[in-house]
Amino acid sequence: MPDTITLTPIGIVRSEYKDPVGVPINPVFCKGVKGQIEIFPEYAPALKDLDGFSHIHVISFFHHSQGYRLVTQPFTDDELHGLFTTRSPRRPNPLGLSVVRLIKVEDNVLHIEETDMIDGTPVLDIKPFHPQLDHRSDVRLGWLGDRLDKVKKVGEVIYDQRYVPGGRRKRGD
Amino acid sequence: MPDTITLTPIGIVRSEYKDPVGVPINPVFCKGVKGQIEIFPEYAPALKDLDGFSHIHVISFFHHSQGYRLVTQPFTDDELHGLFTTRSPRRPNPLGLSVVRLIKVEDNVLHIEETDMIDGTPVLDIKPFHPQLDHRSDVRLGWLGDRLDKVKKVGEVIYDQRYVPGGRRKRGD
Repeated sequence: MPDTITLTPIGIVRSEYKDPVGVPINPVFCKGVKGQIEIFPEYAPALKDLDGFSHIHVISFFHHSQGYRLVTQPFTDDELHGLFTTRSPRRPNPLGLSVVRLIKVEDNVLHIEETDMIDGTPVLDIKPFHPQLDHRSDVRLGWLGDRLDKVKKVGEVIYDQRYVPGGRRKRGD
Repeated sequence: MPDTITLTPIGIVRSEYKDPVGVPINPVFCKGVKGQIEIFPEYAPALKDLDGFSHIHVISFFHHSQGYRLVTQPFTDDELHGLFTTRSPRRPNPLGLSVVRLIKVEDNVLHIEETDMIDGTPVLDIKPFHPQLDHRSDVRLGWLGDRLDKVKKVGEVIYDQRYVPGGRRKRGD
């Protein structure tokens, strides 16, 4: 077991979100939000045939994330829950997981929608989304069960405001 | 944009798969395959309330992965495709993404099923699975469209056999 694992970004996100404030908590709350993923040219050959896919997993690095709390109060609930029951960007390894819509591929640039990532976010991996692999049935959802309905209902308040501990209230927790 | 990103494992997989040979390509081909994820004790508080969830995302590190090809022939097809259209473990950043079934949480140990990870795999993150966030409809699947049906049909041959370049034929590509 290595003590640390070193990764190298394969690309960068271009997004209308320049700052964590106001970024929706998930792509499903970002309908129609356009963005780009610039894959660094040396990796561009790996995009061959990607234009046939409508959705991709993007594993990214929450580069604005600072620190974390192992037990935290998510903004969607009034109780304390374990960090690993949340999708907070403040994590021991601040990795983001977004399923975004792929509109087109232009050379080394992926034009996407449902962009929930901040401008400048380092991208670590792209994988094809496939319902046969990625959907599940008979799912129990713990405390998170119906909380997302609440999120949807409050409309514009679809982001967390506790991103930076003790600092400005931003997306997170 | 940082040149490199350094992560620290939060836990380790215990699995009946001791070697990449014969590991199914995805949890959906691992029905009933039991395993454990030992979360390192210092992170155990982050598991609070996780037992309410039936499925979790596991982001792991393919520690047996060696090298990669940007354009590759997946074992499910006869044509060459871009690496980012595949779920091969041989990637620039060899990150695994598994949705596994959580059976129970015992202190810092997650008892799981649909284990598609090799014994000793470093775990980087755990996130709750939620169909409202993780399912998509109207999905186009490129070359991968019906290839998984072929995988299912061949029964025991549900793993790739080209894991190590030029070496033993193992899971991957």
